[in-house]
Amino acid sequence: MAEYRVGVLGATGTVGQKFIHLLRNHPWFRVTALGASERSAGKTYREATNWTESTEMPDDIAEMTVTTCEPDRMDVDFVFSGLDAAIAGDIEKAFAEAGKPVITNARVYRQHETVPLMVPEINPDHIELINEQQFDPNGRGFIVTNPNCVCIPLTMALKPIWDAFGVESVILTSMQAVSGAGYPGVPSLDILGNIVPYIGGEEEKIALEPMKLLGKLENKKITFADFPIQAAAARVPVVDGHLLSVTAKLKNYPGDIEKVKEAVRNWRSPIADLNLPSAPAEPVHLYDDPRYPQPRHHALAANGLQVGMGRLRESKVLDIAFTALGHNTIRGAAGCSILNAELLHARGYLKR
Amino acid sequence: MAEYRVGVLGATGTVGQKFIHLLRNHPWFRVTALGASERSAGKTYREATNWTESTEMPDDIAEMTVTTCEPDRMDVDFVFSGLDAAIAGDIEKAFAEAGKPVITNARVYRQHETVPLMVPEINPDHIELINEQQFDPNGRGFIVTNPNCVCIPLTMALKPIWDAFGVESVILTSMQAVSGAGYPGVPSLDILGNIVPYIGGEEEKIALEPMKLLGKLENKKITFADFPIQAAAARVPVVDGHLLSVTAKLKNYPGDIEKVKEAVRNWRSPIADLNLPSAPAEPVHLYDDPRYPQPRHHALAANGLQVGMGRLRESKVLDIAFTALGHNTIRGAAGCSILNAELLHARGYLKR
Amino acid sequence: MAEYRVGVLGATGTVGQKFIHLLRNHPWFRVTALGASERSAGKTYREATNWTESTEMPDDIAEMTVTTCEPDRMDVDFVFSGLDAAIAGDIEKAFAEAGKPVITNARVYRQHETVPLMVPEINPDHIELINEQQFDPNGRGFIVTNPNCVCIPLTMALKPIWDAFGVESVILTSMQAVSGAGYPGVPSLDILGNIVPYIGGEEEKIALEPMKLLGKLENKKITFADFPIQAAAARVPVVDGHLLSVTAKLKNYPGDIEKVKEAVRNWRSPIADLNLPSAPAEPVHLYDDPRYPQPRHHALAANGLQVGMGRLRESKVLDIAFTALGHNTIRGAAGCSILNAELLHARGYLKR
Amino acid sequence: MAEYRVGVLGATGTVGQKFIHLLRNHPWFRVTALGASERSAGKTYREATNWTESTEMPDDIAEMTVTTCEPDRMDVDFVFSGLDAAIAGDIEKAFAEAGKPVITNARVYRQHETVPLMVPEINPDHIELINEQQFDPNGRGFIVTNPNCVCIPLTMALKPIWDAFGVESVILTSMQAVSGAGYPGVPSLDILGNIVPYIGGEEEKIALEPMKLLGKLENKKITFADFPIQAAAARVPVVDGHLLSVTAKLKNYPGDIEKVKEAVRNWRSPIADLNLPSAPAEPVHLYDDPRYPQPRHHALAANGLQVGMGRLRESKVLDIAFTALGHNTIRGAAGCSILNAELLHARGYLKR
Repeated sequence: MAEYRVGVLGATGTVGQKFIHLLRNHPWFRVTALGASERSAGKTYREATNWTESTEMPDDIAEMTVTTCEPDRMDVDFVFSGLDAAIAGDIEKAFAEAGKPVITNARVYRQHETVPLMVPEINPDHIELINEQQFDPNGRGFIVTNPNCVCIPLTMALKPIWDAFGVESVILTSMQAVSGAGYPGVPSLDILGNIVPYIGGEEEKIALEPMKLLGKLENKKITFADFPIQAAAARVPVVDGHLLSVTAKLKNYPGDIEKVKEAVRNWRSPIADLNLPSAPAEPVHLYDDPRYPQPRHHALAANGLQVGMGRLRESKVLDIAFTALGHNTIRGAAGCSILNAELLHARGYLKR
Repeated sequence: MAEYRVGVLGATGTVGQKFIHLLRNHPWFRVTALGASERSAGKTYREATNWTESTEMPDDIAEMTVTTCEPDRMDVDFVFSGLDAAIAGDIEKAFAEAGKPVITNARVYRQHETVPLMVPEINPDHIELINEQQFDPNGRGFIVTNPNCVCIPLTMALKPIWDAFGVESVILTSMQAVSGAGYPGVPSLDILGNIVPYIGGEEEKIALEPMKLLGKLENKKITFADFPIQAAAARVPVVDGHLLSVTAKLKNYPGDIEKVKEAVRNWRSPIADLNLPSAPAEPVHLYDDPRYPQPRHHALAANGLQVGMGRLRESKVLDIAFTALGHNTIRGAAGCSILNAELLHARGYLKR
Repeated sequence: MAEYRVGVLGATGTVGQKFIHLLRNHPWFRVTALGASERSAGKTYREATNWTESTEMPDDIAEMTVTTCEPDRMDVDFVFSGLDAAIAGDIEKAFAEAGKPVITNARVYRQHETVPLMVPEINPDHIELINEQQFDPNGRGFIVTNPNCVCIPLTMALKPIWDAFGVESVILTSMQAVSGAGYPGVPSLDILGNIVPYIGGEEEKIALEPMKLLGKLENKKITFADFPIQAAAARVPVVDGHLLSVTAKLKNYPGDIEKVKEAVRNWRSPIADLNLPSAPAEPVHLYDDPRYPQPRHHALAANGLQVGMGRLRESKVLDIAFTALGHNTIRGAAGCSILNAELLHARGYLKR
Repeated sequence: MAEYRVGVLGATGTVGQKFIHLLRNHPWFRVTALGASERSAGKTYREATNWTESTEMPDDIAEMTVTTCEPDRMDVDFVFSGLDAAIAGDIEKAFAEAGKPVITNARVYRQHETVPLMVPEINPDHIELINEQQFDPNGRGFIVTNPNCVCIPLTMALKPIWDAFGVESVILTSMQAVSGAGYPGVPSLDILGNIVPYIGGEEEKIALEPMKLLGKLENKKITFADFPIQAAAARVPVVDGHLLSVTAKLKNYPGDIEKVKEAVRNWRSPIADLNLPSAPAEPVHLYDDPRYPQPRHHALAANGLQVGMGRLRESKVLDIAFTALGHNTIRGAAGCSILNAELLHARGYLKR
């Protein structure tokens, strides 16, 4: 199978580095262009980048020359974007207008009416929203986004339950890893042996994005789901892996927690048949041991793309409670973008 | 004022050490006897103890000889007990029967019908239960307990709200410090850069003990409060200070979060007038900064006896949400026992 | 190539688990027997083990029944031993006497006159000591050991320098990960946000074992190397990877640090030609960036089998200084045993 | 005794905050002016400051208005400076020229010929260098500096040994707390569960500053001490307290480590008779337990002003080895400046 030539926008940042790390052996996607700021343009990637991945920088990437993030500087079939929200809006639009599909982790277009906010295992049908996009009159360029790093594991863990019983309300406390704040991000003086019980802006996203994810595509529009999510987002001294403590009221609680466990265990991903190269065999794994999942031990399950659930139990206040864990920079960010791209290919939205 | 001669049961353990640390300059209570296991008896305290407090072991205590935990070996006016639950039952009973008041942090008698489960700022009137105790026919010996280290800050933070508006249900996630598990306690391999989302037995205590604390003393019995508490107890890489993320439904939510804040700020401790030497001027402090309180920065406020509250806000699912922080080995254990003893003195229950 | 049937002694412990983890896809060695204590014998491995590896327990291993560590219970070609030193002596001897080669990480036989203390990249020729062993009159059973987890990276980093210039004395401070103490090992209360500047017994091993490793096999005996090593061993809050800060005086310092760097970079492993499946292409890697190597980022280089060196520079007091990093439970323990086994196979010491 | 009116330069930074924290109950020095950047000037201290001390910001200080760092804006008797080196040079000179003594933790003037680099317990006689200063023609203004946060505990630990036996060379590895890098300082992604074995510029200071500290004042000049110090400076995940692993060659090693221990234990601080309010009774404490001192448990001994030594033992390579611990932001920074000011008062160098 011929490869796509892929660009990475924001290639020197932490999300950009994660894209490069995750794509280093990808069977379909080959990184051939690296976009970054004026300051980095013209340098080799090695010179321009403070590499923070644990694997070594791939040698071929290291020697590539970084360019600015302009469509005519990057001769590629499509781009992944790890740009900061502050600058992503204009740049991503420019690429889409120039006919280059943009698969982005930035939040700018997440609530745009014609942009899918997509997790392949949750709402792959939202992909059709792309047909409504007007960025590129020739219809080649478009934008697809993925949700926030808490929303992804939260909604993935809820999806089997939502499908079987409906959800009426959710209360959660998220214990979030420092890698979620990028680099330099959280100062060590704030977090060593400590917890910071507030992350600005996070709780609003957690309340909003799952509504679009679980929404229905009807008449070329998304009708949002509608239930309240009360979130408390805390930063904890963990490197990778957001752990969520969730309590939920269901529309139709079956009165027996075992039936909820069954629903989770029997749930089947809607993209299971596509055999996408990065798709985990079991997107949501329910652990029996009440001590599991734990960030340091289980965030990397299925190469960081599996969401772990644990302690699924009855709640004395609402109906059920559980924990959920997702690798925040893989499942919750760059890895989800790559899955989105694989789905786009499978559905014929990408051209070489 | 003449001093009481005080014994510490379980003196070589972590709770016992905390008693000794906190009592080192106490105006009323002087440690004059140290009880521990057969293995330690006969040694000096210095020899018998793996001291883990950060302040130095007091020199006078260091040279004292440890005895076994038997009433006739310890010539004291009363004892504090930091014994393990596994052995506390018989020993504490023996002291009470021998006419020595026992003020204990162990959990054995917390649900005993005539034993007060007491936090001075919450339910000082429960002290009268002592009059119903039958341990000592002469009426001098008795047992008083304090609650679990999560229940204390949780119930203290809820008390002003309970008084003003009533509470219907509570959902909380507790992020608990490793010192709560004693020494050696939590292995570092389990907790460095990690979270363990389960602490065996903890959630049951969190659901039960506040019911007795908030219960009413009627006809010489406690009528328990009755509302559900759904807890998720997680261990986090923090040394001292349990941080709680709480959501609650109130009996009569005033519809305005500012009124709840006022109720917390205007709440007055029922023991404020007693001027007990360890009592914090402000037992519950509500922070404005949403990043506060944090374990490393605020657990030691008011010498570790103040409970911090923060982020008091409306909940989209129940009525209100907030964070609460308490120093687990001071406010949540030995410090609360000492406050109980001070109240017992003030109420005339202790004799020299 | 036909596989060896391999047993793991101490299979439920942390070193035993590491053997099982590292051997899960080994091309030559297949784990077919699991030995542990009486308490575990008869249970499945899943039941008997508190699995602490981050990868999942292999399904086939999980269902195997654990036996006691007795030669006639384990029908294997040879065994790896991760036994505690307290019990390893008798058991390992029994296996060797029964004709089963023992490749052990335990320290009991490290200084035994006829037992090789071996790291394949350092002293593969010491393998011939086996021929002097008397454990098994039939000559099939024998014992091979690997050194302590600090001695391995220290001696590997010194080897190119030793070969080129000789070494007269070494001073080092080792900053050692908690996994080196096994499980439960280091209590979290001792090490969270802290350093413990003493590890009992460690400094003596660090001074002694490199002397045998760098010794010469002459007349069927090892003539030890002879230079002083002054070590200070500290425990630090790191999960995996011992980092050493080393200063050394050389026999013939060339007066130019660049020549020392060249010697390290041009050094060639004596087993390079054997293409052992686990052998890293570059056993010792010298980093240019003075911030590297770091435990969390580089301990797993080459699957945890590469030793990282950094900051190679002149010393104002002795001749040279550098840092060295080795993954303590892979390069410094189970991984080195597996390399030893691969070398034993290549040299014809193992039989199926 | 009447109080001095004291200004703090760089009052909103981390060193400035530490000055305010340490001076909150000082018997002689009262903070009456707060200098910071243009950006902060005009605001209250509470508004201008991201307070990171664990104690609460003193109420009276909180309401003070911050000014720019100009002598005529700050009506004080002298100033403490916690300014960044980048701007300290001009500002400190301006204050000295305006007749305001400057007691600074900044490094700019540490090697200035007429500026004492002073630790009261080490070289109080260097105070006379002030008489040679030309900053203020009226002779009231001057500058006094204290050394780097590693040099202070290192030189204090060496001083008793230097006095008794002389020192020929030193090799050390410093394991340095994150608070040494200020705020935001070290990113958590760099240091959680990790070690960074390099701190730019640090090792040069460690080699140089002790030479001036241990130098002799002769003919109104300092003749520097002259011996090599080989340092390796690493950052570790510790909040406060630099731990040093030191090996040293002595001029006249007595051949018996007990004699070195005696020299440390019998050493008497040259300022012991002055009874300075912040001076620790025992500036250097030698622990017997080989596990001590440890950063989290002992850095705050004597309010953070005592240097802990441990593991004093013979070295097989040089003569002796030991560990030393100092609280880097108290003993190693602001606390040392305050001690310098107390000595200046006692010697009559400060005027009200």
